[in-house]
Amino acid sequence: MANASLPIYLDHNASTPILPEVLDAMLPYLRDRYGNPSSAHHYGRVSRQAVELARQQVATLIECEPDELYFTSGGTEANNLAIRGAAAARPDRRCIVTSVIEHPATLEPCAFLQRNGYRVYHAPVDTLGRVSPVDVTAALSTEVLLLTIMHANSETGTLQPIDELSGAAREFGALIHSDAAQSVGKVPVSVRREQVDLMSIVGHKLYAPKGIGALYVRAGTKLEPLVRGASHEKGLRPGTENVAFIAGLGKACEIAMKDMDEEGQRIRRLRNQLWTLLAESIPDMKLNGDPENRLPNTLNVRFPAVSGNDLLTACPSVAASTGSACHANGESASAVITAMGIPESEAIGSVRLSLGRQNTPEQITQAATALITAWQQVKN
Amino acid sequence: MANASLPIYLDHNASTPILPEVLDAMLPYLRDRYGNPSSAHHYGRVSRQAVELARQQVATLIECEPDELYFTSGGTEANNLAIRGAAAARPDRRCIVTSVIEHPATLEPCAFLQRNGYRVYHAPVDTLGRVSPVDVTAALSTEVLLLTIMHANSETGTLQPIDELSGAAREFGALIHSDAAQSVGKVPVSVRREQVDLMSIVGHKLYAPKGIGALYVRAGTKLEPLVRGASHEKGLRPGTENVAFIAGLGKACEIAMKDMDEEGQRIRRLRNQLWTLLAESIPDMKLNGDPENRLPNTLNVRFPAVSGNDLLTACPSVAASTGSACHANGESASAVITAMGIPESEAIGSVRLSLGRQNTPEQITQAATALITAWQQVKN
Repeated sequence: MANASLPIYLDHNASTPILPEVLDAMLPYLRDRYGNPSSAHHYGRVSRQAVELARQQVATLIECEPDELYFTSGGTEANNLAIRGAAAARPDRRCIVTSVIEHPATLEPCAFLQRNGYRVYHAPVDTLGRVSPVDVTAALSTEVLLLTIMHANSETGTLQPIDELSGAAREFGALIHSDAAQSVGKVPVSVRREQVDLMSIVGHKLYAPKGIGALYVRAGTKLEPLVRGASHEKGLRPGTENVAFIAGLGKACEIAMKDMDEEGQRIRRLRNQLWTLLAESIPDMKLNGDPENRLPNTLNVRFPAVSGNDLLTACPSVAASTGSACHANGESASAVITAMGIPESEAIGSVRLSLGRQNTPEQITQAATALITAWQQVKN
Repeated sequence: MANASLPIYLDHNASTPILPEVLDAMLPYLRDRYGNPSSAHHYGRVSRQAVELARQQVATLIECEPDELYFTSGGTEANNLAIRGAAAARPDRRCIVTSVIEHPATLEPCAFLQRNGYRVYHAPVDTLGRVSPVDVTAALSTEVLLLTIMHANSETGTLQPIDELSGAAREFGALIHSDAAQSVGKVPVSVRREQVDLMSIVGHKLYAPKGIGALYVRAGTKLEPLVRGASHEKGLRPGTENVAFIAGLGKACEIAMKDMDEEGQRIRRLRNQLWTLLAESIPDMKLNGDPENRLPNTLNVRFPAVSGNDLLTACPSVAASTGSACHANGESASAVITAMGIPESEAIGSVRLSLGRQNTPEQITQAATALITAWQQVKN
């Protein structure tokens, strides 16, 4: 990050660097501790211990029991396991309630079920990007299998009132799933407080590697596995465990637990500094998302009279994005932004600036200057 | 491995160490190169290049085109994607032909389909553990969706005549899948020569990490995805790519390509030395599997008048297994060994000794001595 020739990285919601301490926790399992955790011998036991330590570390962060956690290859698999696993386990209920601003890793398994006869209701959001408990409640019935709403939106950072939404769903006997990919590690997330049955956790959004995640499954919740094989993860997620990355995810959760308050405040100050610098220099600059109930690292702004893509192309010294990295190739405005009632012509100017641990005040000043200069060059 | 206090590792079919060069290839992507490959900026492009280089490296080893490869979280996922993905894409054919000695990662998705109305035929094996083309041909019809037979058995190392089996299946319009988890990297495997449509590759069996694999999908073969989400891996396997482990898998394939002949010969000599030492000292010692058509690193033997579990428990200086690590907790004889016609009372004495790159002639001598001593202690 200190290399002056590299762009300033403001795309932490797409992926985070791995913390040095997290890499240190993984390296033994990429070097000498190579046993298969299913093996009964010394090498196997050493690997098994790492997996179970990590399960405890993740559980502590989200306030669940270790045996309620199942490691997956990431968020997409965790969401699919939650949604399709619940559908397969409880075929009598054929309706799903979700929102218009979910990630494709939620929308697509829901669309798959819809093609197979399920009814899927997509709750709208208000101008701040929040799902209303009133809209969700209106869609609930005893037909509803699952309410699945993300904990924080990846583009705007807007936090959803999961605890309020889950109460209504529970009354109808529906399961509650939350994709907490963007929240875990950035803000306090507790499965007890949120009252969810299922929650997805993603390593590479919290300074652990790409390729590891976990699904929280409340004790007693019935799920069918997505892949079938041997008895790993109590048969719910077979396949030899990714011991090294599981150890990394555990360490990242331990660090998040310890540093979240202080780092959250630091990052919020930097984020607000960036907003102030941009808004002071660019008239009609607008904020996308909820100014208050929002991830501390996320700033999604609408630059006037430009497209976000043109702006970022003109500003190679800042690495950021116009939407989720997972649909980076689109030319049109973000569906998340237009869902908030922003006209397409304005939404097209949106840029997501997502900060992280390595960002310094100097970088934020430099990034603001670079973005303002680029805006002046490319605006209509 | 040089640490005298650690057991001698003879369980490479359960999991291999990561080669130092493989770790070196991964480390940049665990340190500074942390971009999401879907991101359009510098960091994203660097990660994307690593994924595509690795795809080329894997393709070169198995003689396919890079765009016929889809990275997965490992072999279990690859097998499930092949089997259930083919079933979902071609629902008119409702019969699967497999064998009695497959891994649970094949048997269990087949069993799932069987519970959903598919007919599944499990071809037997002969006394050497080989599936007969005659038996497979007898089971074929135009109802057969898929023939799925492992390339080499994980317990005995017996190689299957995939090229002979695939010819017959092709005549009936069936797809051919081979789980080549144990073969790729140890013996030459070519999707062209074997004439398969689908093939599973597993990183941690060839000195790459646990948690990465790939599925070869012949161009034009229709598969439905197992998980749904964004457009990664052309939509067949969504989820942010595990860039570091993909880079490691690519490097491991490159190294295997280069070293396979020489290392295969070295390991075969060590393996044969181990067999000679054991057979010389233990009367009635028997070999499980095919003496000729077998992975060069695998020695599966039946110790007389003991159980394999008791023997290994009495021999803590050798890390080996009585069966696949994926079903290590079983007390009964291996189903793979009994399927070869070995009586349960004999099969129970089986131990799999699977060698690897770090094993030295000295280790093999020490391991033989330790196993013989333990056998003398625990035999009835």
